Amino acid sequence: MKDALEIHKKLKGKIGIKAKVKVSKDNFGLIYTPGVVEVARVIAKDPLLSFEYTSRGNNVAIITDGSRTLGVGDAAPEASLPVMEGKALFLNLLAGIDAYPLCLNTKSKEEIVRTIEILSPSFAAFNLEDVQAPKSLDIMEELRKKDLIVFHDDEQGVAIAVLAALINALKVVGKKIESVKICIGGAGAAGYGISKLLNFAGAKNLLVFDAKGIIFRGREGDNKYLKEIADFTNTENSTGSKKEALKGSDVFIGVTGVANLLDSSDVSLMAKNPIIFAISNPIPEIIPKEIKKAAGKFVFSSGRSDFQNQINNIIVFPGVFRGLISARRKMDLALELKIAKAISALVKKPSISNIIPNPFDKRLLKTIAGCIKKNN
Amino acid sequence: MKDALEIHKKLKGKIGIKAKVKVSKDNFGLIYTPGVVEVARVIAKDPLLSFEYTSRGNNVAIITDGSRTLGVGDAAPEASLPVMEGKALFLNLLAGIDAYPLCLNTKSKEEIVRTIEILSPSFAAFNLEDVQAPKSLDIMEELRKKDLIVFHDDEQGVAIAVLAALINALKVVGKKIESVKICIGGAGAAGYGISKLLNFAGAKNLLVFDAKGIIFRGREGDNKYLKEIADFTNTENSTGSKKEALKGSDVFIGVTGVANLLDSSDVSLMAKNPIIFAISNPIPEIIPKEIKKAAGKFVFSSGRSDFQNQINNIIVFPGVFRGLISARRKMDLALELKIAKAISALVKKPSISNIIPNPFDKRLLKTIAGCIKKNN
Repeated sequence: MKDALEIHKKLKGKIGIKAKVKVSKDNFGLIYTPGVVEVARVIAKDPLLSFEYTSRGNNVAIITDGSRTLGVGDAAPEASLPVMEGKALFLNLLAGIDAYPLCLNTKSKEEIVRTIEILSPSFAAFNLEDVQAPKSLDIMEELRKKDLIVFHDDEQGVAIAVLAALINALKVVGKKIESVKICIGGAGAAGYGISKLLNFAGAKNLLVFDAKGIIFRGREGDNKYLKEIADFTNTENSTGSKKEALKGSDVFIGVTGVANLLDSSDVSLMAKNPIIFAISNPIPEIIPKEIKKAAGKFVFSSGRSDFQNQINNIIVFPGVFRGLISARRKMDLALELKIAKAISALVKKPSISNIIPNPFDKRLLKTIAGCIKKNN
Repeated sequence: MKDALEIHKKLKGKIGIKAKVKVSKDNFGLIYTPGVVEVARVIAKDPLLSFEYTSRGNNVAIITDGSRTLGVGDAAPEASLPVMEGKALFLNLLAGIDAYPLCLNTKSKEEIVRTIEILSPSFAAFNLEDVQAPKSLDIMEELRKKDLIVFHDDEQGVAIAVLAALINALKVVGKKIESVKICIGGAGAAGYGISKLLNFAGAKNLLVFDAKGIIFRGREGDNKYLKEIADFTNTENSTGSKKEALKGSDVFIGVTGVANLLDSSDVSLMAKNPIIFAISNPIPEIIPKEIKKAAGKFVFSSGRSDFQNQINNIIVFPGVFRGLISARRKMDLALELKIAKAISALVKKPSISNIIPNPFDKRLLKTIAGCIKKNN
């Protein structure tokens, strides 16, 4: 990891500002005073013309408070800057977007909401990133009420990627989303987003567990997002630990953040030909070697690039932002579903080792953005 | 001005984000997950290391609320975006700085102060720009109390440029700053900044007037900045209109925003060989043709590029930001004076037509930044 530090020190930032015009004595008066005054006047009369005459239409702010900094947890906002720069870099390289990494020196959800609102005149859309749940979900709830385009990658991006992979994994094992039992481990932003989207996509037998066990209606101390999960999952309102949750499951989706949460004894409780997405980073809930002890045919996917079938939201967010800012529309579950289906369709012949396109698949951008452009 | 609209529409933004590194499968793990986690960990332990491992050290945010948008006045924040982009462009082209134009959707000074504080983890310094006075001065007062580097170009940048030009203009007419009578028209951010810096630089006979006439101690309804001006100017505590103010003045500095405020009858009230800086944009307080009717030898300067001796803060702010972020220090009057002197010294042989370097003078950047680097 010394290499990572070295490359960052050398680069001093993975992104920077570039001038899009050369200045000369001839054009100085047009792009600065007095010419710019005319542009300001036109926009003052109709602020939406800022999308025509400035960079706004291509600008996305990546917002975090550092409260769930990758690999660190709740940290000073500065610590999340290299991660946000990474996001900005990929938005730029993969989708040609001008993305601004803005790490906020506040942990207050009210201030985060207000700051996004205050920053809105310079941006077409916002990416909320690496903020602790349920705070991040509260923030999204408030922002949805406003005239703002905000994507919550940790919730919506992960959900889209997971569903895209799941659609193909189900084909590989010959099962249907409507009839399989799906067990989701983890009920943070990712678990919430995944369970909502799978439910919307027609999954009828969903069970979510967290550190306290299976989420059920009437469980004490649950926040409103956990209660919402309880409302549309766990039809039998069963209780118990991960073992009870996994019993007979066709699918396990792990977004727990707990390394090596499962072992082969857990896998042996699952249905035949299980699908196991162990997405937690950097160490997944289980690895293929351990699964093999208990299962014959299975489909495995993780967040890591050193295993096959990497589920990484980098597959999703560049195209999503390209689409959202081009169409100037908000994300919703119907759109998430449409995008997931389109991504899965890019894999022509799904197999155990190929259920999701790789992040550098050039078709992703147009495919995803195209879903958002068309009315649906 | 149709050309200005056209060029802006074609560019869709004068600046954008650039990637500083190409991504491949080989370096993906270093610049993104899992490598970036190590960088986040290091910064989490010491947030100041964000200056070493990210773009922060070269990032400047240009902040406005659009309340004093160039040529428009109090406008929607979006209207100021093309102007802020222009500033960002020059900071990039002239000083290699990564400048982010952020137009805020609030007119509240408390919220502007708080937003700057909240945004601080991503930036090395801030430029407060085109905010109405006295609000902008109130904001600066609050920000100075905090551990932030903020430059107020409309106040401090203008003052430095004016003093630099004045030092040379005084040489041309053979007068001394200590003994001349200086009349300043306008008491907004620029008038406040100029009067404070001239006083600090040794000017003893200063008089400032605004729309209500000469500012004097005890004048009713004045805000604290006008009271502060009254305290160190107008030793005889005289009253009256611009006519009384101009009587016997060696120097007039106009930052009133009022086009054609003066005519030759006003100039005839001034001392012999007057220095007249009519800086208001786009139309100055007076033009040379009118001055000639009443004065023989005189030194004229304006904010316009079509007259000689253009006083434009673009001379100042690129070097100032380069210096402030390299040295990580705050601006103060002593530094303003030092910079003004250094800029004036770049003009080896001051003459009526040459009292200040032009904005594209390549020596400016190093000269100004050098002033800030060295301890003084």
